[in-house]
Amino acid sequence: MRHVLDIESLGPGVVETLLDRAEHWTKKLEDKSSIEPKLTGRIFMNLFFENSTRTRMSFEMAAKRLGAKVINFSTTTSSMSKDESYYDTLANLAAMEPDGVILRHSEYNAPRFAAEIFKCPVINGGDSWRAHPTQALLDALTIKRVKGRIEGLTVAICGDVTHSRVARSNYILLQRLGAIVRIVAPASLMPPEKEFSKAQRFENIEDGIAGADIIMMLRLQKERMTEGLINSDTAYFHQYGLTPERLGKAKPDVYVMHPGPINRGVEISDEVADDPVRSLILKQTALGVPVRMAVLEWACEAQ
Amino acid sequence: MRHVLDIESLGPGVVETLLDRAEHWTKKLEDKSSIEPKLTGRIFMNLFFENSTRTRMSFEMAAKRLGAKVINFSTTTSSMSKDESYYDTLANLAAMEPDGVILRHSEYNAPRFAAEIFKCPVINGGDSWRAHPTQALLDALTIKRVKGRIEGLTVAICGDVTHSRVARSNYILLQRLGAIVRIVAPASLMPPEKEFSKAQRFENIEDGIAGADIIMMLRLQKERMTEGLINSDTAYFHQYGLTPERLGKAKPDVYVMHPGPINRGVEISDEVADDPVRSLILKQTALGVPVRMAVLEWACEAQ
Amino acid sequence: MRHVLDIESLGPGVVETLLDRAEHWTKKLEDKSSIEPKLTGRIFMNLFFENSTRTRMSFEMAAKRLGAKVINFSTTTSSMSKDESYYDTLANLAAMEPDGVILRHSEYNAPRFAAEIFKCPVINGGDSWRAHPTQALLDALTIKRVKGRIEGLTVAICGDVTHSRVARSNYILLQRLGAIVRIVAPASLMPPEKEFSKAQRFENIEDGIAGADIIMMLRLQKERMTEGLINSDTAYFHQYGLTPERLGKAKPDVYVMHPGPINRGVEISDEVADDPVRSLILKQTALGVPVRMAVLEWACEAQ
Repeated sequence: MRHVLDIESLGPGVVETLLDRAEHWTKKLEDKSSIEPKLTGRIFMNLFFENSTRTRMSFEMAAKRLGAKVINFSTTTSSMSKDESYYDTLANLAAMEPDGVILRHSEYNAPRFAAEIFKCPVINGGDSWRAHPTQALLDALTIKRVKGRIEGLTVAICGDVTHSRVARSNYILLQRLGAIVRIVAPASLMPPEKEFSKAQRFENIEDGIAGADIIMMLRLQKERMTEGLINSDTAYFHQYGLTPERLGKAKPDVYVMHPGPINRGVEISDEVADDPVRSLILKQTALGVPVRMAVLEWACEAQ
Repeated sequence: MRHVLDIESLGPGVVETLLDRAEHWTKKLEDKSSIEPKLTGRIFMNLFFENSTRTRMSFEMAAKRLGAKVINFSTTTSSMSKDESYYDTLANLAAMEPDGVILRHSEYNAPRFAAEIFKCPVINGGDSWRAHPTQALLDALTIKRVKGRIEGLTVAICGDVTHSRVARSNYILLQRLGAIVRIVAPASLMPPEKEFSKAQRFENIEDGIAGADIIMMLRLQKERMTEGLINSDTAYFHQYGLTPERLGKAKPDVYVMHPGPINRGVEISDEVADDPVRSLILKQTALGVPVRMAVLEWACEAQ
Repeated sequence: MRHVLDIESLGPGVVETLLDRAEHWTKKLEDKSSIEPKLTGRIFMNLFFENSTRTRMSFEMAAKRLGAKVINFSTTTSSMSKDESYYDTLANLAAMEPDGVILRHSEYNAPRFAAEIFKCPVINGGDSWRAHPTQALLDALTIKRVKGRIEGLTVAICGDVTHSRVARSNYILLQRLGAIVRIVAPASLMPPEKEFSKAQRFENIEDGIAGADIIMMLRLQKERMTEGLINSDTAYFHQYGLTPERLGKAKPDVYVMHPGPINRGVEISDEVADDPVRSLILKQTALGVPVRMAVLEWACEAQ
C-alpha cells in the first residue's frame, strides 16, 4: 500500500517521481490543458481532526481536478470525535472503504496509526510537530522551479523550529536532495541537538540568513506567548521579523518562503511578504495543487 | 473577465441575456429534461464569509445541475479567517486557481475586492447592505413569469430598506427594466435621500402599498431592536406587518415577495406568507436555481 | 413516491427487495467490480438537523458510489434553523428540487413531515426515538450474512431500549422477518408495555442473553445520567455492560452487534467489542454502505 506518511518513509526514487509528476501537472494546469480525469470513480475522505482551510481545500482541488470525489469530515461539525476514541472513529470510517484518505491530526504520528487501520492509501495532511510531507514536496518543487536545482543551495529555516512540522519535513527532504540546511531560532524555540542533527544552527537571524539562497520563515503560533517562550508579537518582530533590511544580508537573489498563514508584522513584514520578485509565498500555495495531484495519483496507482 | 458583482456593472443587454437564459433553464428543470452538463470539469469555490443556507445551497445546486464541482468554504469551519487577513485568505485561494468563485461577505464591496485578486469570474452572493445581484435577477424573473412583464409595474419594497442589499439591487434592476419603484419604511429604517433617488417614498405602509402590483417585504434583522431602530417584534408587526387586511389596499391581483428567511408575525403574517395565489416566496427560491445556472454559465462562457 | 420513513410503511416485498439488492451491491463492493453509476445526474440533499458523522458519511459514500452528487446541510454550519421554522426551511429546500433527501432530526416523525413537503423521495436517517430504518436494514443484512437466515433466531436488544430508535426499527423489522425478539433493559430504561408488545422482556441481562443467537447492545446516552435514570457509567457497566463472562451465558456461536458509536467500558467491554469472531460492529458499518446504495437506488427507481 502506498501511503505518504512522511518524507523518510518514501522509498528510493519516490520523491523524484513525485516531483517530476508534479511538474507535469503544473504544466497541464498552466496551459489550461484539459486534464485527464485519472481518478474518476475514486472517493477520498478528507479527515481533518485539526482546523485547516488551505491544506484541506488544496487537497480537495487536487482530487477534483483528477475527477475524484471527496467526502469531508472535520471534528468541528462532527459528534464522532467527542464521543468516540480516535481508533473507533477511524475503524468505522475504514469500514466504509474509501479509496484514499487525507488526514490531519494534532497527535504525534496519528496518520501512521490510521494507515494500519485503513485498507487504502493514507496521505498525511500534517501531524503534530512531526511531519507535513506534502508541504515539503511543494516547497521543494517551488525551489526547483525558481532556482533550477536544490543541490548545493543554502536554505535557512527561521523561527519557531521546535514546534514546526513544516521545518522537520523540509529539513529531511532538502538534506536528501543535497541542500545545506540551517535552522535559525531564538534559544527558546531552538530544538534539542538530537533533532536536525546535520543542520547548521544560528540564534541570530542576521547570521542565519547571511549568504542564504532561500529563507523559509515559519509561522509563530500565538500560544507560544502564553507558554512564555516569547514575549510579544512586537518583541518577536523586532528580534526575528523578516524585514527588507534583514533581507539585505542574504544573497541578492535570495527567495523568501512561508508555509502560511502568515502573521504580518510578527515573523514577516508586509514589504517582504508582498515583494513581487523575492516572495514565493503564493507560488507555494499554487504549486500545492499539482504536488497533491501527483501524490494522490501515485498513491492510487498501486491499487 | 465576466464577474457578477452588482447589477450596475452588468453591461448593456447582459441582464436580458441572463433572464432569457434563466427562462431556458427553468423550462429544462420543469420538464425534467436532461440538462446538458455544460460546466463539467469546472470547479467553483463557494466562499461564505457570512452565514447562509439558502443562497449557498442554491448556488451549489445550480453548479451541480450543470455538471460542475463545488468546494465549500465557510468561516465557521475554517481557521483561516481568524488568523489571516481577508486579502491573504483570498490571495491563497486564488493561487489554487478555481474556475469560478461565489462569495458572500458582510463587508462593503468585498466581492469587488476579490475580483481583483482571482483570475476567474467572481459572483457576488451578497455583500453588506450594498448588493445581492442574483437575488434581484431571480426576483425579476419571478415577476416576469407571473405578470408577463416588468415595465410599467408598481413595485413597493417595504421594511428595513436602509440595511437591505436586496432592496438596493432590486431598486437598480427594476428601475432599469422600467418598473415604478417605491420604498416604504418607517422613518428610522428609511435610507437617506441621496440613495434610491428615483424611488417614491412612503412612511405609512397602507399608503405605500396602495395600487401596487408587487409588494416586496424585507426581513427585519433582530439587531435593529438592540440598535433602538425599532421597539419590538410586536410593535413592528402592528405598524408594518403585511396582513390580509393591509394586502386588501393593494391591487386585487397583487403578488407578495420576500427574499427569505421570513419572520412570521414580524414583517409578514402566516396568512399572507402561505397564500397559495398571492405569495411568490417559494417560487422565488425555486427560480433561484435556474437564475444561478444562467449566471454561472454566462460567467464561464468567456473563459 | 418511494419514501423510506420507517420499516412499517414499506410495502410487502420491499424489505426483501432492498436486502437482495444490498447483497448485490455488497458483492460488487467486495469484488472491487466496477459499479455502474446508476444515479449519475441525481443530486441528493443530506439534511442533518442532528449531529452525525457515521450515518451522514455512509449515505454520502453510498450516493457517490452510485455516481450521484450530494449537497450537505447541517444545522451547526447554517443560520437557517436558528431563524426559520422547520417547515419554512424544508419548503425552501424543496423549492430547489433535489432528486432525493436524506434527513435526520431529533423531533418525532420529522422525516414524514418532510415527505409531505418535498417532491422527491425522503429517506429517514434517524428521527427521535422513533425510527432509523436504514440501521435496521443493515443490521438485518449483517445477521443474514453471518447466520444465513433471520427466521427463528433469538435476538436480544439490550440497554437503553426506551430512548432507542435503533431498537424500535429493529424490533419491527426482525419480527417481520420471523425472529424472536427480546428486549433487555433495567427498569428505568424499559419501555411501557404498549410498545414492543410482542417482545419478551428481561430486566436482568444474564437472563436476557441466555440462549440468544444475536445480542444487540445499545448506546447509553450520557444525558440519561443527568435525568437520574442511571447512576453512573461504572454502575451501568457493572449491571449491564457486556463482558466476556456475560457473553458466556449466550449461545457459543452468538454474535454481538452495536449501532455505534460505542461507549467502551459503559455498555460494552473492550474484549467483546474487539472480539474478531463474535463482534459484528465494524461489519455493520461496512454493510451500511451497500444497504444505503440499495435504498437510494430503489427510492429513485420510481421517478
